[in-house]
Amino acid sequence: MKTSKNRTNLLLVGGGADAVNVRYACGFTAPDPFLYVQRGEEKHLLISMLELGRAKALGGGVKCHTVDSLNLKANARKSLGKQAAGLIKHLGLKQISVSPVCPVGLVKDLEKAGLRVRVMRRPLFPERLVKNDREIRHLRASQRAAVSAMKAAFTCIRESEIDKKNRLVQADGSLLTSEVLRRKIERVLLDADCVAEEIIVAGGDQGVDPHERGHGALYAGKWIVLDIFPQSKVSGYWGDITRTVMKGRPSPDQKRQYQTVLKAQKNALSQVKPGVTGKEIHDEICRQFVAAGFETGMIDGVPQGFIHSTGHGVGLEIHEAPSVSPMGGPLEVGQVITIEPGLYYKGLGGVRIEDTVVVTEQGCSFLARCGKEACL
Amino acid sequence: MKTSKNRTNLLLVGGGADAVNVRYACGFTAPDPFLYVQRGEEKHLLISMLELGRAKALGGGVKCHTVDSLNLKANARKSLGKQAAGLIKHLGLKQISVSPVCPVGLVKDLEKAGLRVRVMRRPLFPERLVKNDREIRHLRASQRAAVSAMKAAFTCIRESEIDKKNRLVQADGSLLTSEVLRRKIERVLLDADCVAEEIIVAGGDQGVDPHERGHGALYAGKWIVLDIFPQSKVSGYWGDITRTVMKGRPSPDQKRQYQTVLKAQKNALSQVKPGVTGKEIHDEICRQFVAAGFETGMIDGVPQGFIHSTGHGVGLEIHEAPSVSPMGGPLEVGQVITIEPGLYYKGLGGVRIEDTVVVTEQGCSFLARCGKEACL
Repeated sequence: MKTSKNRTNLLLVGGGADAVNVRYACGFTAPDPFLYVQRGEEKHLLISMLELGRAKALGGGVKCHTVDSLNLKANARKSLGKQAAGLIKHLGLKQISVSPVCPVGLVKDLEKAGLRVRVMRRPLFPERLVKNDREIRHLRASQRAAVSAMKAAFTCIRESEIDKKNRLVQADGSLLTSEVLRRKIERVLLDADCVAEEIIVAGGDQGVDPHERGHGALYAGKWIVLDIFPQSKVSGYWGDITRTVMKGRPSPDQKRQYQTVLKAQKNALSQVKPGVTGKEIHDEICRQFVAAGFETGMIDGVPQGFIHSTGHGVGLEIHEAPSVSPMGGPLEVGQVITIEPGLYYKGLGGVRIEDTVVVTEQGCSFLARCGKEACL
Repeated sequence: MKTSKNRTNLLLVGGGADAVNVRYACGFTAPDPFLYVQRGEEKHLLISMLELGRAKALGGGVKCHTVDSLNLKANARKSLGKQAAGLIKHLGLKQISVSPVCPVGLVKDLEKAGLRVRVMRRPLFPERLVKNDREIRHLRASQRAAVSAMKAAFTCIRESEIDKKNRLVQADGSLLTSEVLRRKIERVLLDADCVAEEIIVAGGDQGVDPHERGHGALYAGKWIVLDIFPQSKVSGYWGDITRTVMKGRPSPDQKRQYQTVLKAQKNALSQVKPGVTGKEIHDEICRQFVAAGFETGMIDGVPQGFIHSTGHGVGLEIHEAPSVSPMGGPLEVGQVITIEPGLYYKGLGGVRIEDTVVVTEQGCSFLARCGKEACL
């Protein structure tokens, strides 16, 4: 039961630092910076004349201004900060709140114009943490796109052959590299009206560096980490899924590695429910990994083991609150989070299994389902 | 002859506000925020343990730190600002400069930690304005991708048929809509390892709103504005090109509209050379349009005529300095700019013709060439 009474008078920079919050607040996005001011319940945009058409079509009672409609003098148009001061004064405000990510130069411009500026420390829109039905629909659509792309990747790997050097090759004889597989994934996402710039297709020890996107030949008998996180071009909401697969047979150690991650993920998913904290879920996974003999720490100068947090919120940002980590607080119904334990060791490779779920009264439910076979 | 002596001690937020400048300074990019500090000639990164592998591979003498390697206490890790303060103190600095887009909350954290913070007003890296050979190569590659995609779009329109309602249809009988054509363009760009999220395929009066991406059926006898601006996923550099085409025959007024824009663009391109100002080029186009009887202003509450600036710099940002507009200063050899006059009228539709050129000693040269036939 969120209330929006007594809204703070707030300035946000759209198309820049606060783009996501502005999109959340009024639905408007633009490639170049623009200004959003909330005065009580009123919503105001200061945009370029070029954006007027799109902005007026927004509806929702958003009032649109331009430097012309505000009659700003030449000098008062020279920077975004001066324009912001013009709008704020036009609205009769002497004081305004900004977000912590507001550009410091803009704040200085406001202060120079005689306005008092307060930097908000609490979340601008705490209601962003809990997704409504419309948001869940958008998140589900993006997650479904991610799953379709994942299944396409599975098919490519399943249909590949193994050459004499143990590399995966396609039916036409060319190598099935990380790049080729990533392209196939991207095409599926493109057709679902999504962008996905940083998809990970990392084979063998490349997968031990969780931010390595992967490059070059893929090999049988090596783990392939597939981490797919598309953003809908239409809604702006993200999906996020990771699977780890192998062509051929895992070694006994690799098998134990996979089973340990899979079991940890299953347990964590069964733990998710309102009131349970992200910290509890994360700590339990850590305990299980240690109990299974999988230690975490610097080995040969490289972080190995379970080297990241268990999960994060997903919404208009790919990484947003709440956190499923040592800092994670109690979960609430309607929050959307990932559960993505992983184990990474040089020699074994990386294994990560990730799903995105919505917290329900009873526990949680998948935004979209995708199988978890390790061997293709 | 740029000198990098007496570099300011500088803090920038990578993966966020200053992402482009950090990429320029040290080549590193990441999806989540990280910190970059320049102490004299030294370059320092403070990154998550997960990024260490990629960051160490950077070379160029960039020093990599993590909260662990800096031995930051739990409290000093809690925000990016506190981490920044930790790094700056570790480097023995008491004062630091930040960019105008530095998050104000981070600046407050630095000040709370006893550091003096100066907000830079002059450009952080003025050398970004003039592109070196490596940068020109990257820009050329992105522009070539844009031209390939443009030619693919031409082919689709040329091969389309016209149905009884005057709409463009494909060989299989389905409509050639803005969405379908955009998808085809995106596929070409994807195959060239580029992203392009905001491609414009706007037919008829949709093209009068220069930021309308376009939707629905395309019609014979109506202008179709095709504005393609891809960013290379590999280099980060952009390309930018616009063509306006028509299936069928333009009316006499549309023909004059097109010829006037084409002539203005040609003249402007022939004006580009070192020392000429962006303002001179822009003003000349305005004069020509008025002389040809094409007025600019609010008509029926909608901005019409020549309603945007003539051009902008292109580099690691799609819109960067220098400006070819009433604010535009003198051009320099090695600057890369667009020249994109346009005329927009309800009823006639929008016409914009844009090329991206590099300023040379003698004038300018195209980054890539693309024909300018109006009728397909």
